[in-house]
Amino acid sequence: MGNSFGTLFKITTFGESHGPGIGVVIDGCPAKLPISLSEIQTELLRRRPGQSHITTPRDELDQVQILSGIKDNLTLGTPIALLVMNKDQQSKAYDHLKEVYRPSHADYTYSEKFGIRAWEGGGRASARETIGRVAAGAIAKKLLSHAFGVSVLSYVSGIYTLCATVDDNTVQLEDIENNIVRCPDPEKTPLMIQEIEKARKDGESLGGTIRGLARGVPAGWGEPVFDKLKADLAKAMMSIPATMGFQIGSGFSSTTMTGSRHNDAFYMQDNKVRTHTNQSGGIQGGISNGELIYFDVAFKPTATIFKTQETLTTDKKSLQLQAKGRHDPCVLPRAVPIIDAMTALVLADHALRQKVQFL
Amino acid sequence: MGNSFGTLFKITTFGESHGPGIGVVIDGCPAKLPISLSEIQTELLRRRPGQSHITTPRDELDQVQILSGIKDNLTLGTPIALLVMNKDQQSKAYDHLKEVYRPSHADYTYSEKFGIRAWEGGGRASARETIGRVAAGAIAKKLLSHAFGVSVLSYVSGIYTLCATVDDNTVQLEDIENNIVRCPDPEKTPLMIQEIEKARKDGESLGGTIRGLARGVPAGWGEPVFDKLKADLAKAMMSIPATMGFQIGSGFSSTTMTGSRHNDAFYMQDNKVRTHTNQSGGIQGGISNGELIYFDVAFKPTATIFKTQETLTTDKKSLQLQAKGRHDPCVLPRAVPIIDAMTALVLADHALRQKVQFL
Amino acid sequence: MGNSFGTLFKITTFGESHGPGIGVVIDGCPAKLPISLSEIQTELLRRRPGQSHITTPRDELDQVQILSGIKDNLTLGTPIALLVMNKDQQSKAYDHLKEVYRPSHADYTYSEKFGIRAWEGGGRASARETIGRVAAGAIAKKLLSHAFGVSVLSYVSGIYTLCATVDDNTVQLEDIENNIVRCPDPEKTPLMIQEIEKARKDGESLGGTIRGLARGVPAGWGEPVFDKLKADLAKAMMSIPATMGFQIGSGFSSTTMTGSRHNDAFYMQDNKVRTHTNQSGGIQGGISNGELIYFDVAFKPTATIFKTQETLTTDKKSLQLQAKGRHDPCVLPRAVPIIDAMTALVLADHALRQKVQFL
Amino acid sequence: MGNSFGTLFKITTFGESHGPGIGVVIDGCPAKLPISLSEIQTELLRRRPGQSHITTPRDELDQVQILSGIKDNLTLGTPIALLVMNKDQQSKAYDHLKEVYRPSHADYTYSEKFGIRAWEGGGRASARETIGRVAAGAIAKKLLSHAFGVSVLSYVSGIYTLCATVDDNTVQLEDIENNIVRCPDPEKTPLMIQEIEKARKDGESLGGTIRGLARGVPAGWGEPVFDKLKADLAKAMMSIPATMGFQIGSGFSSTTMTGSRHNDAFYMQDNKVRTHTNQSGGIQGGISNGELIYFDVAFKPTATIFKTQETLTTDKKSLQLQAKGRHDPCVLPRAVPIIDAMTALVLADHALRQKVQFL
Repeated sequence: MGNSFGTLFKITTFGESHGPGIGVVIDGCPAKLPISLSEIQTELLRRRPGQSHITTPRDELDQVQILSGIKDNLTLGTPIALLVMNKDQQSKAYDHLKEVYRPSHADYTYSEKFGIRAWEGGGRASARETIGRVAAGAIAKKLLSHAFGVSVLSYVSGIYTLCATVDDNTVQLEDIENNIVRCPDPEKTPLMIQEIEKARKDGESLGGTIRGLARGVPAGWGEPVFDKLKADLAKAMMSIPATMGFQIGSGFSSTTMTGSRHNDAFYMQDNKVRTHTNQSGGIQGGISNGELIYFDVAFKPTATIFKTQETLTTDKKSLQLQAKGRHDPCVLPRAVPIIDAMTALVLADHALRQKVQFL
Repeated sequence: MGNSFGTLFKITTFGESHGPGIGVVIDGCPAKLPISLSEIQTELLRRRPGQSHITTPRDELDQVQILSGIKDNLTLGTPIALLVMNKDQQSKAYDHLKEVYRPSHADYTYSEKFGIRAWEGGGRASARETIGRVAAGAIAKKLLSHAFGVSVLSYVSGIYTLCATVDDNTVQLEDIENNIVRCPDPEKTPLMIQEIEKARKDGESLGGTIRGLARGVPAGWGEPVFDKLKADLAKAMMSIPATMGFQIGSGFSSTTMTGSRHNDAFYMQDNKVRTHTNQSGGIQGGISNGELIYFDVAFKPTATIFKTQETLTTDKKSLQLQAKGRHDPCVLPRAVPIIDAMTALVLADHALRQKVQFL
Repeated sequence: MGNSFGTLFKITTFGESHGPGIGVVIDGCPAKLPISLSEIQTELLRRRPGQSHITTPRDELDQVQILSGIKDNLTLGTPIALLVMNKDQQSKAYDHLKEVYRPSHADYTYSEKFGIRAWEGGGRASARETIGRVAAGAIAKKLLSHAFGVSVLSYVSGIYTLCATVDDNTVQLEDIENNIVRCPDPEKTPLMIQEIEKARKDGESLGGTIRGLARGVPAGWGEPVFDKLKADLAKAMMSIPATMGFQIGSGFSSTTMTGSRHNDAFYMQDNKVRTHTNQSGGIQGGISNGELIYFDVAFKPTATIFKTQETLTTDKKSLQLQAKGRHDPCVLPRAVPIIDAMTALVLADHALRQKVQFL
Repeated sequence: MGNSFGTLFKITTFGESHGPGIGVVIDGCPAKLPISLSEIQTELLRRRPGQSHITTPRDELDQVQILSGIKDNLTLGTPIALLVMNKDQQSKAYDHLKEVYRPSHADYTYSEKFGIRAWEGGGRASARETIGRVAAGAIAKKLLSHAFGVSVLSYVSGIYTLCATVDDNTVQLEDIENNIVRCPDPEKTPLMIQEIEKARKDGESLGGTIRGLARGVPAGWGEPVFDKLKADLAKAMMSIPATMGFQIGSGFSSTTMTGSRHNDAFYMQDNKVRTHTNQSGGIQGGISNGELIYFDVAFKPTATIFKTQETLTTDKKSLQLQAKGRHDPCVLPRAVPIIDAMTALVLADHALRQKVQFL
């Protein structure tokens, strides 16, 4: 269970890291949405390993196939199935980990849950699972832009101790994509790359934060109680591997303000209800208010490192683990398209939900 | 839509602040769980207004009735419906707000969503909606303790700029309940009360943080992908009014650690797999690992204040709003049982889900 | 589980026959639908016992209260909770059945399922559970007529060996309501009443068929695969107590036709696509085609009879059961509003679903 | 929407008749169930076209691939994705139908629903969609037999005016599979084949009935209200293309019995609660009682015939349609494994649901 996300724009992902293939079925995308294979592939290329010298060196092309639901670049209204075959299932590379619980990985918890595990490459816990999300997210993004004028965008806002300064109202996709850390602060970018290269050399890993944005969301999206927009975004983000925290708008910093400082005063601008400040992050009472939606996601330093670590074998013996090979010292640049995808999936779902709210 | 939560232990809440009643239906509670009316009422008393001089002065008794699903203090396996009638529907107190969008309230967004609103007392956006959650949470808590040996507990860990120091491994319910701020740090408690009293005098409001704990959760609860335990907890917490952020384990602070510092080394203790540190907050790969589950929830200062504020009327005219009456300057003490309830609802759901994972 | 029905227009029922109350929560009704308490009460009066000398003599007023979701005769877009308190919980009348498994009742199967049972009056298996359905159905009916121009109607088409002759295109509600068997064939009506009176005298019970109709459903409602309109109607009808069969359009009689005889030829009439015949019952490929929707539901003779029957006690001893009291020898007249309600609930759900199918 | 079925053992099918592939994702199958590719392929071979001279002559091998969720012939507890590529997408064969609404097909209703259609071969309305169901059903069957000792079986019980006589308590799979009509009545079988051959020669089609059986279901499966076992079976069966009716146990014939004749008297046999008769079809109050579950499904004569028919073009002009080619004059033999699959899917779901009913 738990492999589906969304209520009206609903996706189900499948696939183990080292099984035959990885994919997604989207049920609920309206008919007649224009979408091409290359629009989907473009997002997958942003996610794939091996795209720069600071990410994992595994070069996976991740070529997506459309199995159903799209014909002549139009959605049919039927389930859209997208598949990426795993071209290179080198389970052997993981042979030395078969009987080890790697610290802070899902090895132990999966064993306890399922009584079995597809241990090669982490199985279903692998970041490869997010391929299905990113592919589905490409369609959600298109639905949002095509039918609702909404765009989503995210960027690396911090790596380790380095924090970027960015104007969320003006930042554009090209500012994010023009550098390999996907951070639109040109001063911090080289320092971040330096830190990542150092971490790789040290066999270490680094975490950081990603800021997510959604522009053009009209007032009225989101549900009042459990499916508040902030709640669904929180779940979406915290379902991504390695995430440790989520905050909307002023987030944790709101706790040290008083109400009069924090409240967003309303005013009219060009016949539109606006707020002077946007501590609410575009969401009030769980429902969008028409302002910019912004939020932050915290990623821990990933668990794969090449320092010696104390751990246990699957038969519960103590072990000094010294992993080897090459690794991805900082997943944040590649996580940016995943944040985009999850944001788009949440918003596409609520866009459709709002269509049945009125008579 | 969006008024249900959970998959196997599933609740649906209903009721407007100033409508006839507020309640919840629980579908999926197993049969033969011992539960009494007073166990449910006890949790509601922890949530109710008027319980101390620092909360809202409205004195609402919130007497719960069992409409179905429980007989002779045993669950029947059928839907459990719980109802609290709203004894005192003084809509008049809100007359002066009928045509105003209060800043950072849900007034404007609800109007945009529904094209209509039950404006008295915030309607469905009111904190009274959480009565249903707390009542259902009492049953979830009992299910967890009775059938799985799991307990949940939460406390105020910070108010405004004051942070508590607490040992999460030893703190007990009585340490939390023995003071009106529900903070188990006896040094900070009087300072917190002072700050809240000052805020009330100033017509201001204060936010803060609550720490949530779950003890005794066995390894293996939670689903690998979208319904990760951390994701479901995040959604649960971010669905509570006034929440702005959620973090599990090391949370946002993980971003400034390296992997070797952050990883939780495994070892054996008394024939049980343990970790030396618990940065993961008891959850790895989205699944419980048997360690203490802990997380933090950020609450903004609530939107109701008595300072003059710029805002708009419902016909989009500018207005200087000067609210009057008495208010709840800090909702955190009363939010503690809500956090308990939502934690219990998430865990009860996953406890049942794990029962169908194995043959 | 299993106490909810529908996806977008979703209801959850609760309540045992002899518990404090019976009710329903509707989540997903759009805002601003005009609906009054009396419109709901009217449908309940059609369902209630004691309305004529041929039904059960228990006179239950079944006064409905609106707990939430409706204000000033308009829906708010929030969950609508409706409650009927059980005024007279005479469990004693069932004392002699406490330790008996009545033949063809749910007594034995409930015990096996839950390990416990609310035995008085059948608990959740009681026909009283349908109060929630009928109350919710009244709102679904109003949604269909108000927003989509769709009306639902059903009538008793057969009792025991007596079959009615009715023109489905012209029959009106008053033709059905003007007689106590709810059969619009004035020749068969007195014969049916005779049979029911005889059955009562004999301590027997009778079954029969109800025909369900939906007029004005536009082409395009229903989903292609699992949620075909005929499939959702089948489930809705077969979820009613005492139902044994469902057929759409030509139904079982289609099996003895050839394809050329059974196919419905298309033609144009007044610029509308029509079919000359309507063997399909208004549904092709699971989706409405704009013709009259019609179907049949078979009801067994109900299990409560006053003849001596062989059965078992709850401790598995043989017993000759001789039930006593007064009973409802034929539930079909009272089942008519339940069929109406379930038809309306299915169609209201698909009406909303079709709204998100297009961009 | 509407492409998923089940709650705990949940499937989602995808694929158009003439798109790249057809498949299914199963979410909720417990881990460690032994299942091989050949067990799945065997069921698909029973369903595939071209298996005998009386079915459609299209020879489709329908080779299934496992994409995820199974490794070394054991389920992993993760989603199981199964794919059959469409080897031969001869859209041209359908060119002459591109602008025609075939009578009693889904052509017109799909156009109205989606505003677009994948017209080749019926797109999603094609019987090829059932490939995903049969593949998933193979796994459900294995789960039932392996973990619960339950077996499902179905057979052709009538074709056109010919009805079979079969002993449901003793009939075995080999009695069904030893003849090309899948009818275990050796006297009727040759007559049925004759009728089908005649229909083919005449360009006609024939309908009929299939009886479904489930043996070994313990008492207690099924939910009391909406998800009654009979209701879920009804939906499952009525979601199959060309079905027109469903009845459980005595079905429509129950309407002409009195209660005393229809009630199933309880008695003890070998320490097991049994009933002397089984009019209930193994289900009472919506819940299994431990007796044989049996039901009937009515299939209309399929819509594809080669007689001249009046119809409309997609631009609403009248047309005398004379279809050509070869067709499947009677789909019932190939529908048998589909009935098996849907029965197994319903029961597997309820088997898992019953596991969370008790503490």
